[in-house]
Amino acid sequence: MVLDSSGFGIIGGDRRQLALAESIAADGFRVLACGFENAEFTGQVQKADLQETTEVCDKLLLPLPVTADGRTLKAEFAQKQIPLNDTLAQQLKGHMIFGGKVARALQACPQMADLQIRDYSVREDFAVRNAAVTAEGAIAYAMREYAGTINGSRCLIAGAGRIGSQLAPRLRALGADVTATYRRAVTAAHIEAMGCHALPVEKLAQGGSYEIIFNTVPAEIFTDSVLAAFACGTLLIDLSSAPGGVDMVAAGKHGIRALHAFALPAKVAPRTAGEIIKQTVYQMMKE
Amino acid sequence: MVLDSSGFGIIGGDRRQLALAESIAADGFRVLACGFENAEFTGQVQKADLQETTEVCDKLLLPLPVTADGRTLKAEFAQKQIPLNDTLAQQLKGHMIFGGKVARALQACPQMADLQIRDYSVREDFAVRNAAVTAEGAIAYAMREYAGTINGSRCLIAGAGRIGSQLAPRLRALGADVTATYRRAVTAAHIEAMGCHALPVEKLAQGGSYEIIFNTVPAEIFTDSVLAAFACGTLLIDLSSAPGGVDMVAAGKHGIRALHAFALPAKVAPRTAGEIIKQTVYQMMKE
Amino acid sequence: MVLDSSGFGIIGGDRRQLALAESIAADGFRVLACGFENAEFTGQVQKADLQETTEVCDKLLLPLPVTADGRTLKAEFAQKQIPLNDTLAQQLKGHMIFGGKVARALQACPQMADLQIRDYSVREDFAVRNAAVTAEGAIAYAMREYAGTINGSRCLIAGAGRIGSQLAPRLRALGADVTATYRRAVTAAHIEAMGCHALPVEKLAQGGSYEIIFNTVPAEIFTDSVLAAFACGTLLIDLSSAPGGVDMVAAGKHGIRALHAFALPAKVAPRTAGEIIKQTVYQMMKE
Amino acid sequence: MVLDSSGFGIIGGDRRQLALAESIAADGFRVLACGFENAEFTGQVQKADLQETTEVCDKLLLPLPVTADGRTLKAEFAQKQIPLNDTLAQQLKGHMIFGGKVARALQACPQMADLQIRDYSVREDFAVRNAAVTAEGAIAYAMREYAGTINGSRCLIAGAGRIGSQLAPRLRALGADVTATYRRAVTAAHIEAMGCHALPVEKLAQGGSYEIIFNTVPAEIFTDSVLAAFACGTLLIDLSSAPGGVDMVAAGKHGIRALHAFALPAKVAPRTAGEIIKQTVYQMMKE
Repeated sequence: MVLDSSGFGIIGGDRRQLALAESIAADGFRVLACGFENAEFTGQVQKADLQETTEVCDKLLLPLPVTADGRTLKAEFAQKQIPLNDTLAQQLKGHMIFGGKVARALQACPQMADLQIRDYSVREDFAVRNAAVTAEGAIAYAMREYAGTINGSRCLIAGAGRIGSQLAPRLRALGADVTATYRRAVTAAHIEAMGCHALPVEKLAQGGSYEIIFNTVPAEIFTDSVLAAFACGTLLIDLSSAPGGVDMVAAGKHGIRALHAFALPAKVAPRTAGEIIKQTVYQMMKE
Repeated sequence: MVLDSSGFGIIGGDRRQLALAESIAADGFRVLACGFENAEFTGQVQKADLQETTEVCDKLLLPLPVTADGRTLKAEFAQKQIPLNDTLAQQLKGHMIFGGKVARALQACPQMADLQIRDYSVREDFAVRNAAVTAEGAIAYAMREYAGTINGSRCLIAGAGRIGSQLAPRLRALGADVTATYRRAVTAAHIEAMGCHALPVEKLAQGGSYEIIFNTVPAEIFTDSVLAAFACGTLLIDLSSAPGGVDMVAAGKHGIRALHAFALPAKVAPRTAGEIIKQTVYQMMKE
Repeated sequence: MVLDSSGFGIIGGDRRQLALAESIAADGFRVLACGFENAEFTGQVQKADLQETTEVCDKLLLPLPVTADGRTLKAEFAQKQIPLNDTLAQQLKGHMIFGGKVARALQACPQMADLQIRDYSVREDFAVRNAAVTAEGAIAYAMREYAGTINGSRCLIAGAGRIGSQLAPRLRALGADVTATYRRAVTAAHIEAMGCHALPVEKLAQGGSYEIIFNTVPAEIFTDSVLAAFACGTLLIDLSSAPGGVDMVAAGKHGIRALHAFALPAKVAPRTAGEIIKQTVYQMMKE
Repeated sequence: MVLDSSGFGIIGGDRRQLALAESIAADGFRVLACGFENAEFTGQVQKADLQETTEVCDKLLLPLPVTADGRTLKAEFAQKQIPLNDTLAQQLKGHMIFGGKVARALQACPQMADLQIRDYSVREDFAVRNAAVTAEGAIAYAMREYAGTINGSRCLIAGAGRIGSQLAPRLRALGADVTATYRRAVTAAHIEAMGCHALPVEKLAQGGSYEIIFNTVPAEIFTDSVLAAFACGTLLIDLSSAPGGVDMVAAGKHGIRALHAFALPAKVAPRTAGEIIKQTVYQMMKE
């Protein structure tokens, strides 16, 4: 890989960016981290303020998402927050900048529009790698919440997209009997090729006997009438992004234990999630 | 499924169409088979000539490919061949017709252009289902040709598309250490999500230590210089369609045992291959 | 199965016995539960005191272990404890009695020796079923504690016995590269047959590069000098029964994150653990 | 490994011994091969007659089985056969000798009794490693003979011993729904721990709907009445040693396609089978 050596500045973030900083440093690059006053790094990462970071580093990595509140950079380990404003935009200027969910930040701080921040979070390779982490996190979540074992259980996955198609073979490999829903015939083909059962999504309303249901569809498909068709006591883990695909009130009414499991990569495997950001950014620099 | 009951005519084909006819009959439909004089059916399939078949049946299923020689319908079990000509085109007229690799037949017999034959072989769901069969067939082929076991072997898959992405997890599940090549970053993400190693295709020329190589890329990527980088005695199974992706002469020169494994679904699992045609045709009728 | 219908008495226990009671009731048998004042049953289980339970039921199921403190029956949901004494022994007399880790209870209460309590916990089928639950629980534990994903990680399992031999294929199926130690050549054969690497246990002291180590050996094999050979930051999960196989002080000194994960079945999958007790007891009744 | 360097003599055998000779030579040892006049070695193996072989080598490896016909050493590649007689016994004297199925040879040639030939074929590690090869070979066999795919098929395995317990997870990993029979409760526990269905062997006579049945039990359990309970057209592969566990005449009567698949390791993976002999012999020398 041809990468010049002037250094990477990591500005803000959570445990993923902490791991990201350490991982880039372990590759032999100089890394400055700003907004990590309360964090401890194990590797050769140098804490710095915004000015030093932007002076020393020509490549700057913003968090995922760049902003959570629309006013400041996401920075869980910062002592004082970094506002999204002219000053920030001014200091970032002239750098090669990467960030996640950039659109939301631009809306909140239009001054950043000229910075040409490159968004790693919209790339398909990033999404696929994160889906693998989410699939594993979903299994950890199910193992913790379900009173039985995955082995020998009947699992239903609503949606066999990026996450569902990675969750299905893992559950099956652990000994579950796995059914996944599909809309398109090609998805049914993929599901069956993995040794799982394919169920047309329109038959979801007929219910069935499952111990664990995973929802990956970001639309409210688990409505009152659909939930009524599943057995009382079923565990339903919603992996779709907020607001999720489950009518939580109806779930309660029908005795379905429905739980949201949002943002699993950051929670269950921040180190791998940080690695994925690094891999994606390196890849973007090569392209 | 809403299917009327006037019957399916199976006209020509190989063991897949034989299985297809039996499977449709087993679903309760009337099935007439033409061009199967030398075949024996176990189910309720009625042998008939072309005229009776087209009179009785409103749905006609042509083989895959419709024609192999450009002059007659493919019909391995026929006593006398069915020529692609005006007579045939005339008799097929007015039916709902399905066939595989239709373009080739239209080129050979332009009179069939008006028949609006629907091609099941160009659909993605058909391709994915067949890729699963091919992946399994490739494993059977490797088991037969390789003097060791898949378990404990190092396998390289060139190309992680439809076939490669189904072959990789199967080999790994059987105990192999699996590497697959990629061109696009997203493919690398998919490969690694399956617990396999991702190798940029441009590094293929560096060779490596593998017992079995599977090629799925339909372009000559295993050139003389690439082959030179692999160990003498390596088994190379070419799964790509003819003319294949391997310089067979160079392979011989470098002591690589290169073998073509074309058209695996028809050979290793005609029954499943027939089922897949049925599933696809049923699906097309629903859409 | 030929089982008479006079009822099962569940006397004491934790969430496993709660699930056990419900599961036997779901099979259509009459079930009385004693020592569950603070529990809520969803099925047809009748709470009762000791006298009623022993009067109505001819089959009595004691917990696993029968006693934890050596003075009372283990009864997590009891309002008042049930002492191991003459009174208890008297009331249990004349029944078919099953219990777990019975020897310990007999030592504490020799009056129970005449009761001929049959121990389900010493049976091999019971141990194998529990090992499957432990293996799954170990994975859940690792997923929670490890900052990366199992997929792509290098795992070492010390000991390929009941638990290790079930943990290895699960980790591999989730995408890990798995090494397991062995003492006997036949164990190496089993390890390699699962696509894993076999390491003679005497080479453990040479360390190696692993992200996660699972210990299943109930002897202190992870001594100071062995631990020194592994990388700082390695996660070491000790699955062996107390006192475990890891010098925890030395682990801390070498930066190894060593954690005990005792009694996983009861914690992670009480329902399955209860099912296993039921299956074993039914099996013992048939034999 | 501490092995002295005076050389290994390979006397007789088939493709396994050929691979064995090459593999030992590749480890850096001097190897002489006797009874391989018609074979070609790729590595540093020296062909020799019996006298030279026994003079140069202190370690002698006899084939598996040592004798097939009871009169000569098994030697598929020999130009002239090596009789089991006094001369042979005399020449072998004073060496460290290993062989397979030695008992049969001693019966045929009692003069060899004093040679203290060590039998690698009776060891459990040898048997487990070979079972892995047999399991893989059984899959290759099924793929070739079955007109459908393993993926999506229902498979029944009679006997979950060494071979069955390795076959079950492989079939399941390829997408089959797998049932295995058991006699002992602990075997049922093992079967279910692999995500398969456990069937008491006494229920075999109730039949069931399976596409492929594998028999591993070396006793005629597939009798006329048992076979009658399975569907016409079922494929039954008998992996048990001759005479096998299937009433072949009755199978034909009931339309069951029953096939013997004996001695798979030598046929499907001679190289691995040779490696296994080598591993076992090395292990015996260490012990």
